[in-house]
Amino acid sequence: MTSPEPTPDAKTAGSNSSSDAKTAADLIITRCTALVHDDQEQIGFVEDATIVVRGGRIEAVTTGPVDLPAAERIDARGQVAMPGLVNCHTHAPMVTLRGIAEDLPIEEWFNDFVWPIESNLQEKDVELGARLACAEMIRGGVTCFADHYFSMDTVAAVTDESGMRANLGQAFFSSQGAEGQEQSLDFALRHRDTAGGRITTSLAPHAPYTVDDADLAATAELAREHGLFVHIHASENRDQADTSLARHGRTPIEILADTGLLDTDLLIAHGTGIMERDLPVLARATGRVAVASAPRGYLKFAWPTTTPVRALHELGISVGLATDGAASNSSLDVWESMALTALVQKFTEGDPRRLTSRQALHHATLQSARAVGLGEEIGSLAPGRRADIILVDLTGPHTQPVHDLAATLVHSARSGDVRTTIVDGRILMRDRELLTLDVPDIVREMNERMPALIDRSHGKRIQDYDT
Amino acid sequence: MTSPEPTPDAKTAGSNSSSDAKTAADLIITRCTALVHDDQEQIGFVEDATIVVRGGRIEAVTTGPVDLPAAERIDARGQVAMPGLVNCHTHAPMVTLRGIAEDLPIEEWFNDFVWPIESNLQEKDVELGARLACAEMIRGGVTCFADHYFSMDTVAAVTDESGMRANLGQAFFSSQGAEGQEQSLDFALRHRDTAGGRITTSLAPHAPYTVDDADLAATAELAREHGLFVHIHASENRDQADTSLARHGRTPIEILADTGLLDTDLLIAHGTGIMERDLPVLARATGRVAVASAPRGYLKFAWPTTTPVRALHELGISVGLATDGAASNSSLDVWESMALTALVQKFTEGDPRRLTSRQALHHATLQSARAVGLGEEIGSLAPGRRADIILVDLTGPHTQPVHDLAATLVHSARSGDVRTTIVDGRILMRDRELLTLDVPDIVREMNERMPALIDRSHGKRIQDYDT
Repeated sequence: MTSPEPTPDAKTAGSNSSSDAKTAADLIITRCTALVHDDQEQIGFVEDATIVVRGGRIEAVTTGPVDLPAAERIDARGQVAMPGLVNCHTHAPMVTLRGIAEDLPIEEWFNDFVWPIESNLQEKDVELGARLACAEMIRGGVTCFADHYFSMDTVAAVTDESGMRANLGQAFFSSQGAEGQEQSLDFALRHRDTAGGRITTSLAPHAPYTVDDADLAATAELAREHGLFVHIHASENRDQADTSLARHGRTPIEILADTGLLDTDLLIAHGTGIMERDLPVLARATGRVAVASAPRGYLKFAWPTTTPVRALHELGISVGLATDGAASNSSLDVWESMALTALVQKFTEGDPRRLTSRQALHHATLQSARAVGLGEEIGSLAPGRRADIILVDLTGPHTQPVHDLAATLVHSARSGDVRTTIVDGRILMRDRELLTLDVPDIVREMNERMPALIDRSHGKRIQDYDT
Repeated sequence: MTSPEPTPDAKTAGSNSSSDAKTAADLIITRCTALVHDDQEQIGFVEDATIVVRGGRIEAVTTGPVDLPAAERIDARGQVAMPGLVNCHTHAPMVTLRGIAEDLPIEEWFNDFVWPIESNLQEKDVELGARLACAEMIRGGVTCFADHYFSMDTVAAVTDESGMRANLGQAFFSSQGAEGQEQSLDFALRHRDTAGGRITTSLAPHAPYTVDDADLAATAELAREHGLFVHIHASENRDQADTSLARHGRTPIEILADTGLLDTDLLIAHGTGIMERDLPVLARATGRVAVASAPRGYLKFAWPTTTPVRALHELGISVGLATDGAASNSSLDVWESMALTALVQKFTEGDPRRLTSRQALHHATLQSARAVGLGEEIGSLAPGRRADIILVDLTGPHTQPVHDLAATLVHSARSGDVRTTIVDGRILMRDRELLTLDVPDIVREMNERMPALIDRSHGKRIQDYDT
């Protein structure tokens, strides 16, 4: 394995912090290759690395053996340790509808299938869906997800049970009246910093085409008043942006600016409809604005554009990786989103030098952490950060030989190569075995409930897609 | 698991053929869901299927238990049996250079890295590369590959050792003089129908931009004289087509027509530069012409177009799935090529209804079999066909629940879900364990030889990329 860029800072990072070297660490991972960031956030690799975890945080990333007792040790020879992946925008419980509406335009997908079915949705469906989604994400090396859905009390309980980290927001439409926004706020305040700090929260207006300007402005006010993060779909595709311009004379991004949302800490889902005229608007944002990109779904819906990663990068806006819900995306595979982001950006920019593997890994680590408001807590293997770590096996024939480890990770490895997933220092999957969730049980119960859930004979829907 | 399309013919197919019901079968696979094709080649699924294998061929695909002794039985509950995938265009030994030249345009990739390094290539490098490639392909559910490279005697020996099926061609350039073509013919004749029939062969001119018209015409003559298949790169990208038009007044496809190659059984690699004017030319072809598409590499090189699958389909031209070599594609993951073909075609056609999952599976099965000249032998689970079968585990959280099994296979399952790979009735991988190749051994020896192989200080290259 090669280590193309020396990372002297990282190699010794934390080695002086072993003041309590005599007390046992919680977890020590030995003999891995560790993906680290230097002071300029350049990605490098430390070979024969040891990672010491204590109190849910990384205490040290050093080289060679560490003479320290530990409650648990993992020998990670042949494996790369990297920050857990972050799914920056999903609707976890929608895994229940994976494959229910295939090969359709988004209008028919929403109006004929998803929104009619969601009018049947019970708490128990959300619970089972969230459990299955967490199982899928943990198996795919995802340690944190940003969820935007209904019945979020249930999703919060499942997040806690699963051991994952999440930023959760209770979605609302203006069609719900004042109650929607109130419930979103209530959820955000009650669940903030729960599950031992693993749950953070957002206000979650659905989108500028389903939430009116007054409600968006009220959301911005509430966000400022309570110090809350906001998570919203906006300019999801070019059609939405065009329709917004035709109806309101403003793009969805301009509506976010006008309603004050760009002056909050804001996560925008998708943004494939972001236009040239939106760029100066985004440049003037005073909040920490980020965009979550889920490229598989854009291809599947045949949208003509993708998230403008280069333009956003030039504005200093983080682009995090995401999958959206599995009902559209078929998968919660963030590893695939990483590879597809690299491939699709090369294609759309017409430049094979764009979005190198190291840039893709930067999106997958620090930028995704920032996108979900956790830029200081997760996203790198550095002393003081939360111990959200995955171990990736590179001994398979499809990841050998290794000439360029960053390229191997992005373009040759797959989510199934993640062997071990750790959140806050706790092992949630060890050698591909899930430790907090029972998949056969979940699937059995889900399938029993399916006929009632997918019945569309009532002719109702929770909302109309009409951007 | 649902079986959306009844397939009455398939359900009883072969059930009357058990004339020798008293003698033991070689292999019986029970309790799987079998992917089958009906008389119109529509894909359906037979639940609780039993597959009987004898003498390397499928004897029956039926439902429920079969009262027959068998040398070997596989209980495949929760798994889908489908035809093994076919990698319709690759350069297997190039896995050795996976990641050596990243994020570069094709000119630099060829001229600065690949062709200088290939001037160092020894038989042993080809042998180790081919072994690692076969290991990767068997693990990814690939049972057959079409290879176009150098030192093909060695690749043939490794194919035999690995247990895989392959169509092999010794590549040549006109710059080699008459010897290149002679060696390609000699290889094709010596190895045709060897390895118990698992190896078929091609004449393998490199491309119209490296092989002159006289040599292409001679290839067409030789193909007709000896009843040989031809495998060539042509109109790989739009630049090549434009350059060909500027230099010769003809597209690469028109050159294939003028030199008689479209009147042979011809496999064209890539064809992303196929133009509107090429379509009537292809329509007039009297040979069985097919195209191999490897969409990952096209995105990675930022080529502006992809293989025009819809237009080729309308001409009745099969499009098989491929990965190209791992030095450009990073991977020999044909499962990923299947998913990317569906996604990229939706995007380029601007139509989410195009290239449905069932169409993608048709490309992965019958069309890929036809593309490599084995349309009557492999590509479907039907009595009389070669027993090239893979078993795909769908019990993982990422492939549950199943509302649409075709969509689950194409968009949710991954190559790592293939648990068992069978060629000619012989098990090459059982429950993820490779039975014919030793990966750690191969990788160790490969890495020892790597410094000599990748040395570019000599300044030589085997060819110039100058379309």
